[in-house]
Amino acid sequence: MRQSSLFVNTLRDAPSEAEAASHQLLLRGGFIRQLAAGVYSYLPLGWRVLRKIESIVREELERAGAQELLMPALQPAELWRQSGRYSVYGPELIRLKDRHDREFALGPTHEEVIASLVKNEIGSYRKLPVTLFQIQTKFRDERRPRFGLLRGREFLMKDAYSFDTSWEGLDRSYKAMYKAYARIFERCGLNFKPVEADAGAIGGEGGTHEFMALAEIGEDTIATCGACDYSANLEKAKAGPEEAASPEADEESAQPIHTPGARTIEEVARFLQIEPKDIIKTLIYLADNRPVAVLLRGDHEANEVKLKNVLGVEELALADAATTAAVTGAPTGFVGPIGLQIPILADSGVLGMGSGTAGANKADYHCRNVVPGRDFSVERTGDFRNAKEGDRCPHCEAGTLQFHKGIELGHVFKLGTKYSEALNARFLDSNGREQTMIMGCYGIGLSRVMAAVAEQKRDERGLIWPLALAPFQAHIIPVSSKNETQMRTAEELYGRLRSLGIEAILDDREERAGVKFNDSDLFGIPVRIVVGKDAENGRVEFIERGIGESEVIAAEEAVSRILNLYSPKPD
Amino acid sequence: MRQSSLFVNTLRDAPSEAEAASHQLLLRGGFIRQLAAGVYSYLPLGWRVLRKIESIVREELERAGAQELLMPALQPAELWRQSGRYSVYGPELIRLKDRHDREFALGPTHEEVIASLVKNEIGSYRKLPVTLFQIQTKFRDERRPRFGLLRGREFLMKDAYSFDTSWEGLDRSYKAMYKAYARIFERCGLNFKPVEADAGAIGGEGGTHEFMALAEIGEDTIATCGACDYSANLEKAKAGPEEAASPEADEESAQPIHTPGARTIEEVARFLQIEPKDIIKTLIYLADNRPVAVLLRGDHEANEVKLKNVLGVEELALADAATTAAVTGAPTGFVGPIGLQIPILADSGVLGMGSGTAGANKADYHCRNVVPGRDFSVERTGDFRNAKEGDRCPHCEAGTLQFHKGIELGHVFKLGTKYSEALNARFLDSNGREQTMIMGCYGIGLSRVMAAVAEQKRDERGLIWPLALAPFQAHIIPVSSKNETQMRTAEELYGRLRSLGIEAILDDREERAGVKFNDSDLFGIPVRIVVGKDAENGRVEFIERGIGESEVIAAEEAVSRILNLYSPKPD
Repeated sequence: MRQSSLFVNTLRDAPSEAEAASHQLLLRGGFIRQLAAGVYSYLPLGWRVLRKIESIVREELERAGAQELLMPALQPAELWRQSGRYSVYGPELIRLKDRHDREFALGPTHEEVIASLVKNEIGSYRKLPVTLFQIQTKFRDERRPRFGLLRGREFLMKDAYSFDTSWEGLDRSYKAMYKAYARIFERCGLNFKPVEADAGAIGGEGGTHEFMALAEIGEDTIATCGACDYSANLEKAKAGPEEAASPEADEESAQPIHTPGARTIEEVARFLQIEPKDIIKTLIYLADNRPVAVLLRGDHEANEVKLKNVLGVEELALADAATTAAVTGAPTGFVGPIGLQIPILADSGVLGMGSGTAGANKADYHCRNVVPGRDFSVERTGDFRNAKEGDRCPHCEAGTLQFHKGIELGHVFKLGTKYSEALNARFLDSNGREQTMIMGCYGIGLSRVMAAVAEQKRDERGLIWPLALAPFQAHIIPVSSKNETQMRTAEELYGRLRSLGIEAILDDREERAGVKFNDSDLFGIPVRIVVGKDAENGRVEFIERGIGESEVIAAEEAVSRILNLYSPKPD
Repeated sequence: MRQSSLFVNTLRDAPSEAEAASHQLLLRGGFIRQLAAGVYSYLPLGWRVLRKIESIVREELERAGAQELLMPALQPAELWRQSGRYSVYGPELIRLKDRHDREFALGPTHEEVIASLVKNEIGSYRKLPVTLFQIQTKFRDERRPRFGLLRGREFLMKDAYSFDTSWEGLDRSYKAMYKAYARIFERCGLNFKPVEADAGAIGGEGGTHEFMALAEIGEDTIATCGACDYSANLEKAKAGPEEAASPEADEESAQPIHTPGARTIEEVARFLQIEPKDIIKTLIYLADNRPVAVLLRGDHEANEVKLKNVLGVEELALADAATTAAVTGAPTGFVGPIGLQIPILADSGVLGMGSGTAGANKADYHCRNVVPGRDFSVERTGDFRNAKEGDRCPHCEAGTLQFHKGIELGHVFKLGTKYSEALNARFLDSNGREQTMIMGCYGIGLSRVMAAVAEQKRDERGLIWPLALAPFQAHIIPVSSKNETQMRTAEELYGRLRSLGIEAILDDREERAGVKFNDSDLFGIPVRIVVGKDAENGRVEFIERGIGESEVIAAEEAVSRILNLYSPKPD
């Protein structure tokens, strides 16, 4: 491609709306443009990158035995009603009516459609297992689109669905996808980690993993063990057992104590000269609109995902002050477990305390020597808190947990029979008995992968694309467009590389060298060949973007280095 | 691919909702499935065909110098208001509101978005011309979706847009696309014709062509000349000059004649024993709600597209009986031009008549010897009628016009400045003066191409895909899955073909031969290799689907024939 014809316009400054570095650089380099909040056009440079990601995804999915198809974006609301998601999905689901007033949803995902499709095509165990995938534009009306392609409302996604006759079969399908995902992200040059994630009420242990790109801007927190390979999303991560500090049996009874104005854990601790970990934190939640109390050690945070799972509810939110007062008789900040008439869930950390200080359910009062079991009864105990940095690893119990920020690139999920039940996707087994298909689903956000790579691979001057994703493979820049030798050498190189199948771009514009170099930095093409005054001697500058120094070498040597860089490596 | 794993389910009978042969066979062969009216899933077989069409389109567009990008489906209503189309487009445009109540349209086409994009990226003539394209799912809420993929509500389309600094530049961009389109449809194996089409108020002569696949089921009528290469959509086609039958000067004045109950042209002709071509047909239209009279020779049909263009109106419809009576004083069937107080448009065929019989604007009466100019005045004359089969060719004036039915595969269109004006897409010319960009737009319905090929390439047993589009390139069918020699030979062939880069499918199912052959007919794979009892002697049956007889040849010979069939041919 000749750069003079390329539809691109680099920007000197980052548009003010762009917070994330990837977003800034994708805009500045002319890869994407915003049309509306969370809705982007991919300009030719960006589209070339996205198509390379798409090819890698397609190749690896096919290698794993999945078959590609394409389902519609327009989905009859009826299907979503069958699965029960039409009401649950909320405003993220874009709804519309056609000219005959029939309701449709714009597909954010396709479990309903594929289950209904497979139900009609497959009737026997002989045609199972099957894994199907599509690469398609999805729609999700995010409350707060942000970070450019990282959280958009219209985005390119690969979604795959597996159908098996048994849970063991699902395990195999799941593992095949897991392996394909690892290969995909490796080939995209990403620094990533598969982490255990929350599977909700379905799926059980090991039932879902997320693949996370490590990046400061990531909206997820990942807990990893320094000693073993345990890695989990914070919403799922457990803490290993605490040092067995056998709690002192507190013989004293619970005693009220005046704590005027001390509402937060920190205030109470300071006022009473105790540690936060000696305080029993009491939170009043509304779980599907019914109040429950949740007790945590003062230095621990509630994990609402875990709570929702154990309560089996769809909505969980902290009660407001009025509700809290109605349920406990006390203002927020002085709530405690004693005398509560609602179910009490205690995190196991609380039981490990022996006794502690809790709110007295009376304004400006707390209670000392509160002992679970003695002073109040616990309906349910378990792991209801977030792991903390420094917690012991739940897997090896030797290492401690460290936290990182991550961008979710994809997920693999054991769905089980949720959708096949709802949509009646059954088959006859080898005994002629009707069974329900066991499903898995597997998603990758392709446009998000692009942004995650941009987030990880950059310097202060622009992007540094990995070889496999670069919009062009070599950038040829004659220093002076007025110098005939330079232009001729550059043209020859351009022709030669193209004839060898290398995607080369020649900066044939009449621009100052500085302008060309700045644009080249923004494009982030892995190899740059600068044709300057050494062209007189048949030599050019060879630079790998983001790697080491430039070298002056013979033009032909540059060609063979490029070929070598891009020649396929053995697996 | 092993057929036992392929996600497909052939149907013995055509579903009752399918009228078109292509629709029936695409359903029966397991290529597509309907999700809602006009909304289809592409199953793996169909998706493979569509991806091949996509590749051809992409290659030819790139060869023509166009650059690929991707624009969003969600388009802010504001852009459509700027172009004035938000109100004009009608219920075909799917509208929705996001969670913040902002209005969006689901893109049926992208003139507004691309003009606004290009406006922001290009400021100077130096960056022009440019042609940009995308391959994308489009949405159009058709009043009457039908014929499967031929008229859908969600469909895959390639749309391209050119931006030039001058009309001469647009000519060049247009011709490049025209040429690319011809190559695309040739490569898809279609029997097609580029035809002149209506360009509306914009574009002028030669300003738009449609590419039509010839097919009985086509919704368009094409007029072609038997002697030259004139070819036009009926809505655009002109008739050449009539035999110069110099009309007899009619000295007699117009005379009323009692024609009780004779309302239609045929009834009047029969009653008065004259020819339809001797009758002046008078139609009352509402043009943007204002009545006009249109006169035509009795044997001619009005062409509403031509009328709309000459009147410069957006809506044109025949007036209802009440309006007709109010305007003319007569019931429908007895309307004529004499004494009308509304504008009269006369097709030039009427002027060629000299005199004729027309309605008398009085129930049960017509008038004889009605002479235009003498008995009524004509505000406008011109070509307001449909060409007829047998009309003289307007181009060579030697041949006569013949009619065919066609499916519109694509169109190329000189837009001019309609959208660049509305969206302010301007550039500075070489003199530093601001100018408006000159646009062209170019569309191909990819899913419709697939259906058109299916409509043209089939026999009573199933589809016959052209080599370039076949979902698989060779179908290997062992006659008996229990015969070891056959299975081994088939497996060897399968492995050998795959290693040579041929997309082979092996029917490894335990099915009767008849079932396998029926499915193979439905799949329509161009080459079939049947491994039967001759396998003992290393021989197989070689059949080109839809072409000639089967031959028994050595297995290795079959391999080389296949390689030869699929080896790239020089341009």
